[in-house]
Amino acid sequence: MGKRIVIALGGNALGNNLPEQMTAVRETAKAIADLIEAGHEVVIAHGNGPQVGMIQTAMAELTRSDPEKYIPCPLSVCVAMSQGYIGYDLQNSLREELLDRGIHKGVSTVLTQVQVDPDDPAFLNPTKPIGSFMTKAEADKMVAERGYQVIEDAGRGYRRVVASPRPQSIVEIESIRDMVDAGLVVIACGGGGIPVFATERHHLKGAAAVVDKDFASCVLAQQLDADCLVILTAVEKVAINFGKPNQSWLDTLTPEQARSYMAEGQFAPGSMLPKVQAAVQFAESKPGRSALITLLEKARDGISGKTGTSITL
Amino acid sequence: MGKRIVIALGGNALGNNLPEQMTAVRETAKAIADLIEAGHEVVIAHGNGPQVGMIQTAMAELTRSDPEKYIPCPLSVCVAMSQGYIGYDLQNSLREELLDRGIHKGVSTVLTQVQVDPDDPAFLNPTKPIGSFMTKAEADKMVAERGYQVIEDAGRGYRRVVASPRPQSIVEIESIRDMVDAGLVVIACGGGGIPVFATERHHLKGAAAVVDKDFASCVLAQQLDADCLVILTAVEKVAINFGKPNQSWLDTLTPEQARSYMAEGQFAPGSMLPKVQAAVQFAESKPGRSALITLLEKARDGISGKTGTSITL
Repeated sequence: MGKRIVIALGGNALGNNLPEQMTAVRETAKAIADLIEAGHEVVIAHGNGPQVGMIQTAMAELTRSDPEKYIPCPLSVCVAMSQGYIGYDLQNSLREELLDRGIHKGVSTVLTQVQVDPDDPAFLNPTKPIGSFMTKAEADKMVAERGYQVIEDAGRGYRRVVASPRPQSIVEIESIRDMVDAGLVVIACGGGGIPVFATERHHLKGAAAVVDKDFASCVLAQQLDADCLVILTAVEKVAINFGKPNQSWLDTLTPEQARSYMAEGQFAPGSMLPKVQAAVQFAESKPGRSALITLLEKARDGISGKTGTSITL
Repeated sequence: MGKRIVIALGGNALGNNLPEQMTAVRETAKAIADLIEAGHEVVIAHGNGPQVGMIQTAMAELTRSDPEKYIPCPLSVCVAMSQGYIGYDLQNSLREELLDRGIHKGVSTVLTQVQVDPDDPAFLNPTKPIGSFMTKAEADKMVAERGYQVIEDAGRGYRRVVASPRPQSIVEIESIRDMVDAGLVVIACGGGGIPVFATERHHLKGAAAVVDKDFASCVLAQQLDADCLVILTAVEKVAINFGKPNQSWLDTLTPEQARSYMAEGQFAPGSMLPKVQAAVQFAESKPGRSALITLLEKARDGISGKTGTSITL
């Protein structure tokens, strides 16, 4: 019996630039096609760290080349562009892999916005570096002229940092649900989705932020009433005491255990921590829901219960 | 009784840069919301001339800033990015306008590819200028290094020209149809769609081309079995002897009349000619189908038969 699965693809599934992406998505497509071939309904979300950084740098170069003609491009618009940039390659690789296996299923990318809370405390403390390195003089100019917040990255220069607020809901959820119900494979919430917040009279305003793709995938999975949230990353299982002599791989994890390990600082912020947090949020959202953290190429085995770390109530 | 309508939006519906776009899409949203309020099913396609030019220029500036790190970005990828860039603003304006009128309908943008024929004669004679002006030296370099074709634009410098092949089919038609059938408002075929051609084993390869949005809208309307193709532009009606003392506005036009006027050279290539050609193709594709060419703000009156030029068998 097929499950409804939301997959969150990490950076290793996409590569860091266009040639890497074109190669990486072929392997990614195989792992996803395995799940579809096994009879599951699949919805794909993905990150966009290097890609949105590249696009933001390109748009900044454009402004630099002709400041009269081109105003600085808002980050939310760069995220929208990154969804086209990545979705195009990802959907084609998956379409090709499915057809090679004789599976005729439409694969489509939906431009996706996620609503965030303008009062999210993350806006007070931006931590997510975006775009290329700047000299001190360039950074000072950005701070003065555009109100950017910047950090110094030990010895490598200065970078803009933006907030990473928690996603509350997916604006295009109805479209995504209709497509999934119709049997299509959907790519949504690219880069964690375009972050927007509601202002007066139904207006959605882009936020100068990026949303963590694992949390966005979690909300997407909840709103689609998915059975399983699969977070694919660079390790086969979650570990405690990672990299130490007493390192221990975990086959299963309850929300309670996870919270206890998190309190001990077992999971690295910006790396395994948000994955475990998103997995716990999904597992706790409704009885019967489970989350899985594993390697991209182990997705099928993980869903069959053979590997990975399974997070359930 | 509502009709299924595909709307092709021209450049005036979107503006030439981001501030213009944010203003223009608000007016565009009103015209489209009028049709939805009147009970029609609406699918929206649009052009991307200035936008894809801007994105291509930005990506070229990025490559120029660090050629080791960033390879030149293929035009098809720039078209994919432009669909995100435009769709994001357009769908939000329309969503807002609909909610302001108390209409709760999802509005979504689908990344869209159109299949073209690699043997299309257009590839032998690229005519569509793309991106910013270059000096002769820059142009010569692009020709030598990347095989670009360039033209000199009287006194203003050199520009890259690409082919504009005819669209054959919409790759994501199934997704678009499912969404329309489910009552959603869909934005598709942005910029005429990402042009791709089929190679061996189901692979779709991006073409260094741009597809005319009127022809793409026509194919989209045919594949969706739409009742009406509405081409919105900067004039209220099609005219013969345009700009001359004997100028005459046309209320109706049969394919036969249109062909006769086209043979006389009545319609400007790259402007009214492709619109009339696309309208004729749609009107002839099945009895009962009609095309309409009118002003953006006259769309509702045009559909009611009060203005515009109607093209039917």
